[in-house]
Amino acid sequence: MHNFNQADATAISEMVRADVVSAEAVAEHFLGCVEAGERSINAFVSFDPDAVRSQTRQLKNGNAKGLLAGVPVGIKDVYDTVDHPTRFYSPIYEQNRPSRDAHVVALLRQAGAVIMGKTHTTEFAYMHTGPTRNPHDLARTPGSSSAGSAAGMAAGFFPLALGTQTAGSLIKPAAYCGLYAFKPSYGLVSLEGVKPLAPSFDTVGWYGRSVRDLEVMARVLIPGFPQPAHERHACSFGFCRTARWDQVDEDVARSLEAAVQELRSAGHQVSEVLLPEEFAGVFDDHLLINDCEGARSLSKELQMHPDKLSDELLAMIERARLTTWEQESAAKKRLAKLATVLESIFQPFDAVLGASCGIVAPLGLEATGPSDFSKFWMAFGLPQINLPLVRNAGALPVGLQMIGGFRDDSNLLRAAEQVDAVLRAAG
Amino acid sequence: MHNFNQADATAISEMVRADVVSAEAVAEHFLGCVEAGERSINAFVSFDPDAVRSQTRQLKNGNAKGLLAGVPVGIKDVYDTVDHPTRFYSPIYEQNRPSRDAHVVALLRQAGAVIMGKTHTTEFAYMHTGPTRNPHDLARTPGSSSAGSAAGMAAGFFPLALGTQTAGSLIKPAAYCGLYAFKPSYGLVSLEGVKPLAPSFDTVGWYGRSVRDLEVMARVLIPGFPQPAHERHACSFGFCRTARWDQVDEDVARSLEAAVQELRSAGHQVSEVLLPEEFAGVFDDHLLINDCEGARSLSKELQMHPDKLSDELLAMIERARLTTWEQESAAKKRLAKLATVLESIFQPFDAVLGASCGIVAPLGLEATGPSDFSKFWMAFGLPQINLPLVRNAGALPVGLQMIGGFRDDSNLLRAAEQVDAVLRAAG
Repeated sequence: MHNFNQADATAISEMVRADVVSAEAVAEHFLGCVEAGERSINAFVSFDPDAVRSQTRQLKNGNAKGLLAGVPVGIKDVYDTVDHPTRFYSPIYEQNRPSRDAHVVALLRQAGAVIMGKTHTTEFAYMHTGPTRNPHDLARTPGSSSAGSAAGMAAGFFPLALGTQTAGSLIKPAAYCGLYAFKPSYGLVSLEGVKPLAPSFDTVGWYGRSVRDLEVMARVLIPGFPQPAHERHACSFGFCRTARWDQVDEDVARSLEAAVQELRSAGHQVSEVLLPEEFAGVFDDHLLINDCEGARSLSKELQMHPDKLSDELLAMIERARLTTWEQESAAKKRLAKLATVLESIFQPFDAVLGASCGIVAPLGLEATGPSDFSKFWMAFGLPQINLPLVRNAGALPVGLQMIGGFRDDSNLLRAAEQVDAVLRAAG
Repeated sequence: MHNFNQADATAISEMVRADVVSAEAVAEHFLGCVEAGERSINAFVSFDPDAVRSQTRQLKNGNAKGLLAGVPVGIKDVYDTVDHPTRFYSPIYEQNRPSRDAHVVALLRQAGAVIMGKTHTTEFAYMHTGPTRNPHDLARTPGSSSAGSAAGMAAGFFPLALGTQTAGSLIKPAAYCGLYAFKPSYGLVSLEGVKPLAPSFDTVGWYGRSVRDLEVMARVLIPGFPQPAHERHACSFGFCRTARWDQVDEDVARSLEAAVQELRSAGHQVSEVLLPEEFAGVFDDHLLINDCEGARSLSKELQMHPDKLSDELLAMIERARLTTWEQESAAKKRLAKLATVLESIFQPFDAVLGASCGIVAPLGLEATGPSDFSKFWMAFGLPQINLPLVRNAGALPVGLQMIGGFRDDSNLLRAAEQVDAVLRAAG
């Protein structure tokens, strides 16, 4: 009997390709988990066991060949799919049935993945939340906006899932739900068939059950993704608190500091990175650009269905209306300038470490807490990883964030592999 | 009897809104032009007079209200449309019927525009050309990739049309067909529902019958687009030849120099802009990034239908395969650095002038000539305008390009208005 609760996506696809297990057996396991847990979690906005089974039938008779052969995947409901409605958690799109798959959904199918269904998002991946609960504590939010994909991962409904990130939509839920998450460098993955929010930041990202899962997805979704050798070496890490460290709870800070100690004990170097003062404005610049671009992206919806937008979205559009053209231009220029400064700051390090979130998952389903520690790096398009820190029994998940240089994604994954190995061994 | 052959889109919509003419009468005029000329031009890949008439019926009884009330618009076949197939001139998408309109198509309908049909593009807006002919000389190409929109404009099939630009897809056909064209700053217009090619450059753009048409479209498609006062003043222009001036034919150079003389005679200042030598590499860097991003954008099509891609596209994908990750990263870094240099070069000028194309429309329909004078500015996301130079009888069109600072689009349009007035008066 195979333990699909523990196996990562990479192991599952290896077993399916080697015909050790069938794609059907894998799917039935995960369908059983959904059956048992979905009522309390509410991860899916569209779920159809028949559609899952019909996909696995096509993987019979030697057809399960791809890098993700037989791996069930959850798809955030901002990606177009031909076999499920695509609603963006907006009543405007209640009847929306795309005629073709988003680019990455098509690539997942090509790689042999099995689409489990569409997972809950906030409205247009912005702030208005859905009904999804955090499997670690049903009274708490799983984070947003990739809520259903994150909660479904934590509940064991699928071992791999697609999210997106514009501010903290991938990393925050990963921190709250205790997941491995990867947000590649801006621009590496095609957004065809993904509803835009703020195009300067919008990025495809994903959850897996291990660092190697994160890398397999990168190979599937990014043609030509570099694969450096798995050489272990003593790494040099920066630790960056940013100007918002006062948002970090004592318990979270203690977990992160313990992780840093473990890394040092294992022979890696970790040194404090102090950013120049001008970086304190990055949070507000990201917010301002996000507002203005979001208002432009959703201007069609505002014109045609103003009564069907949430208060959160209308507030964003109103903030954008009160922002001048020059203010937005100035914010963009500041970020472009700081990006070049950041480049030299990253130079000496294998990766930069920091908090993924200042807090653990808060109580309630309506507010999901700040995204500052994620959006700070989103402002520069840098690759980000969340590593789940080992938890004491009963404690809520805490995330360690790892940030890489622009387009240095594969080295970031290599460094994450080493960090994760240290933390697992310590845990 | 109204002369719809001469009236610009702004005038037509004013007449329709004031009930001086009906949207139906306008549509019947342009349908008649298509009827008379389409057989020789081949601008449309999908055209349905009934669909046009059904749209104008909805504009009756005081419903013709928007900024583009009753204005027929041609839509390049890279935009999703609910009432026409969307094929990207690729056999892979022969049966593609989108479930919703691209963002900008929806905004056009909201503004009262009448969608005339889908116009020919090259395959995925890259190089493999379609059957469209240049109305100025049927033996010549209209340019690419926005071929059908440009030729349809020149043939009088519609007074307004959507194109897109990644290298020279909007400006080159405008130069060859003698059109007013506007490519706004990168990132201002949502690309939702537009097939991506190279996302670092891809931009929505359009053709009109006057500078004010270009501006009306900007107001429709870019919420919050600034509207500075129409103040006439003596302008200061830069004239930039770039490192590829050797590509400019003598006749084209003579037309451009005559235009510069007219501007000086009218009291404007035009001074030569010499770019630092490092800018000579911009052309190749644009090409390299275009190849790599294009290969990633079309990786789905390559995996699923390798036999249905053109030789031109396969050659691009092969070049991308031979390019290293580091080469692409380095090219991106160089452009980011040069963008800041360019900013200070543009500082003293109302706009920079130059060639839109080094040649007039070449003979034949298969090759459309280089796009260097457009893609040079695309590399930095700057707004671009093509102004048609007044032609001698029998001469082929030549285009004057105007380039603005990043996000300085509305001032560029103001400057273009003044330049155009001088050139019209001189002509």
